[in-house]
Amino acid sequence: MAHITKISPLAPKKFPDLPPIAGVSFSTAAAGVKYSGRTDVMLAHLCPGTTVAGVFTRSSTRSAAVLDCQRKLGSEASGAAAILVNSGNSNAFTGGAGQASVDALVQATAESLSVSEDRVFTSSTGVIGERLPHERIIETLDGLTKTLSEEQIAEAAQAIMTTDTFAKGATAQCDVNGKTVRIAGIAKGSGMIAPDMATMLVYIFTDIEMAQSDLQDTLSELTEPTFNAITVDSDTSTSDTVLLCATGQSGATASRNDPAFKAALKAVMQDLAHQVVKDGEGASKFIEIRVTGAQSDSDARVHAMSIANSPLVKTAIAGEDPNWGRIVMAIGKSGAAADRDKLSISFGDILVAENGWVSPTYREEDAALIMKAQDILIKVDIGLGSGKSTVWTCDLTHGYIEINADYRS
Amino acid sequence: MAHITKISPLAPKKFPDLPPIAGVSFSTAAAGVKYSGRTDVMLAHLCPGTTVAGVFTRSSTRSAAVLDCQRKLGSEASGAAAILVNSGNSNAFTGGAGQASVDALVQATAESLSVSEDRVFTSSTGVIGERLPHERIIETLDGLTKTLSEEQIAEAAQAIMTTDTFAKGATAQCDVNGKTVRIAGIAKGSGMIAPDMATMLVYIFTDIEMAQSDLQDTLSELTEPTFNAITVDSDTSTSDTVLLCATGQSGATASRNDPAFKAALKAVMQDLAHQVVKDGEGASKFIEIRVTGAQSDSDARVHAMSIANSPLVKTAIAGEDPNWGRIVMAIGKSGAAADRDKLSISFGDILVAENGWVSPTYREEDAALIMKAQDILIKVDIGLGSGKSTVWTCDLTHGYIEINADYRS
Repeated sequence: MAHITKISPLAPKKFPDLPPIAGVSFSTAAAGVKYSGRTDVMLAHLCPGTTVAGVFTRSSTRSAAVLDCQRKLGSEASGAAAILVNSGNSNAFTGGAGQASVDALVQATAESLSVSEDRVFTSSTGVIGERLPHERIIETLDGLTKTLSEEQIAEAAQAIMTTDTFAKGATAQCDVNGKTVRIAGIAKGSGMIAPDMATMLVYIFTDIEMAQSDLQDTLSELTEPTFNAITVDSDTSTSDTVLLCATGQSGATASRNDPAFKAALKAVMQDLAHQVVKDGEGASKFIEIRVTGAQSDSDARVHAMSIANSPLVKTAIAGEDPNWGRIVMAIGKSGAAADRDKLSISFGDILVAENGWVSPTYREEDAALIMKAQDILIKVDIGLGSGKSTVWTCDLTHGYIEINADYRS
Repeated sequence: MAHITKISPLAPKKFPDLPPIAGVSFSTAAAGVKYSGRTDVMLAHLCPGTTVAGVFTRSSTRSAAVLDCQRKLGSEASGAAAILVNSGNSNAFTGGAGQASVDALVQATAESLSVSEDRVFTSSTGVIGERLPHERIIETLDGLTKTLSEEQIAEAAQAIMTTDTFAKGATAQCDVNGKTVRIAGIAKGSGMIAPDMATMLVYIFTDIEMAQSDLQDTLSELTEPTFNAITVDSDTSTSDTVLLCATGQSGATASRNDPAFKAALKAVMQDLAHQVVKDGEGASKFIEIRVTGAQSDSDARVHAMSIANSPLVKTAIAGEDPNWGRIVMAIGKSGAAADRDKLSISFGDILVAENGWVSPTYREEDAALIMKAQDILIKVDIGLGSGKSTVWTCDLTHGYIEINADYRS
């Protein structure tokens, strides 16, 4: 990936210290799927009793690995479990060979770890439409199995990167029934990110004990305001996956509505979602779009995403131009209800427009100052109701063109 | 507009020779609305008896001029008519001042030309949210009225340009009842172009005689496969307008279903629509996306537009990369029905993918050669039905970022 020359300016200062999650161990290897000189496979081993929940891309052309994971979530199989992920090749749109590769990887992993095939989840990320050289991955399984360690989650985050410029991790803890519950997650994703899907690869581990159906409901509910509320370029991958694994090793048990666990899990999911946006291809600004006053929450989401995905809005922000006219345009085209004369728009705390026109207190130099910051907050009140939604995106710069006009070369 | 440094590489070799349309005369002026050193106002005068049809942006934040035109199309007023257009300022999202400017322009034009106010149509294009200095335009009306000429349509096409790099015109003629009918049209538009709207300013003139309701039906029907089938950046203007004016001076009368007239009008509309795409901000490739085999025509349109608006597809084409995986991705995310294993994808005559995978006959060097051309044809068969749709777009290049990250500066 010779075109990746520098780390996103929006990257966190360092990879966080992720605590070991009792019952989960990791290992990584360099299989040479596509890249050389780096790891490209990660294995996670999950202790017996671990429950696994997932959300996946809704693409109608989703990959064999995604279809395979979706089938297995409902399985009654028990015992230990495993997650095997490779980067460099997504094994998507590879016809019958795609499923054959998944089958081969699952079978080999199940044998190496003595787990049921129904408890082996795989993901692949990278180029679409090229046969996955799964033999190379299988050759690394022996070593992967022997080097599993609770301390390797940071290395796992490295191994799953594609065009990412930094590894992504997040953690939180909470108290449940007087016991400490730990959550640690990793993610990859920087382009082909859009809402309404599990828009990247994310693996989150916790030592809480929770029934699979409760875990699934919790994950699904919290995906809406986190991973489904981000967009880089409106494009949606064929492969993307969020898996949440609960080992039960903390001794704390909860059901779907435990407020402390939900708050902690949401924090981890939101942190990872923001990191994906902050690694948006070419991103130089992190943008929060907060829409209120819409006729419904779903109308608010439509407006917010229309703003977030507008190339004209995103390029204006790249140019540090407080071009609120383009925000009016994006609201107007969204298809959700709006009334030109009831809109109000703010950049940060600067009220820009209200009552169908520029605010009498607005001075462009104030807004221009706000646009120079790295984090940009755009607030829009539609003035019609109480629907609200917040989404996050990044700007559209020359870097995006550079990375994407030459990805396969 | 100092950033406009060169003419689009996709521009036609020259502005076409547009014939005079009996009953229509034009004049232009430099009002200094925003630009200096160029014309920015055009006036068209239409003889008594002219019928006028229109299609407009569906934006919920559309401009006062658009709302005013929409009201007038149903008017019973008769006599001569006029169209007054300025560039440099769109008079959109300008609160009550917006309607006041439209009223002032309409009143002054009506007085200058002695036409009914209900027969004066105005458009404004350019920056959003700044008060239109309509006084400056009104000051030019005297001169505009005195210099009207049937020969000035090319100058009119120049005066309405904003970020356009070339003036756009098209013409056709046909035989109706043994008489020659002429059609000539002009357009502006290069960014903020998206489907499902009248996505730019377009003025088409013909000397056919046609009742207003027939003219309107004809225009509306032909807008779908022409102006609504193009996209540059998925963004939709608050101002955009297509007006079709029939002077009746040819002596040929037709109703809505005259095949010769419809074919000729469609050719003019399609030509103008293609020119708008070819002047897409930063465009280096003209792309036709032809979807067949969808469950319905509307599904085919959804797939085609999903491909056409995908930043990842558009940047791949900019990089001359036959990255068909991104086309699979765009189909998958569109929301319309698709089956991964029934898709087939071709670049030009090169079959790239079929049966859920790359075609056995595919050689990347063949496709790479096709991608080097200036005109790119992408054919997708969904394999589910007989729905079809063709749309046109351009690639996404550094030029788009350059133009749009700095538009207002």
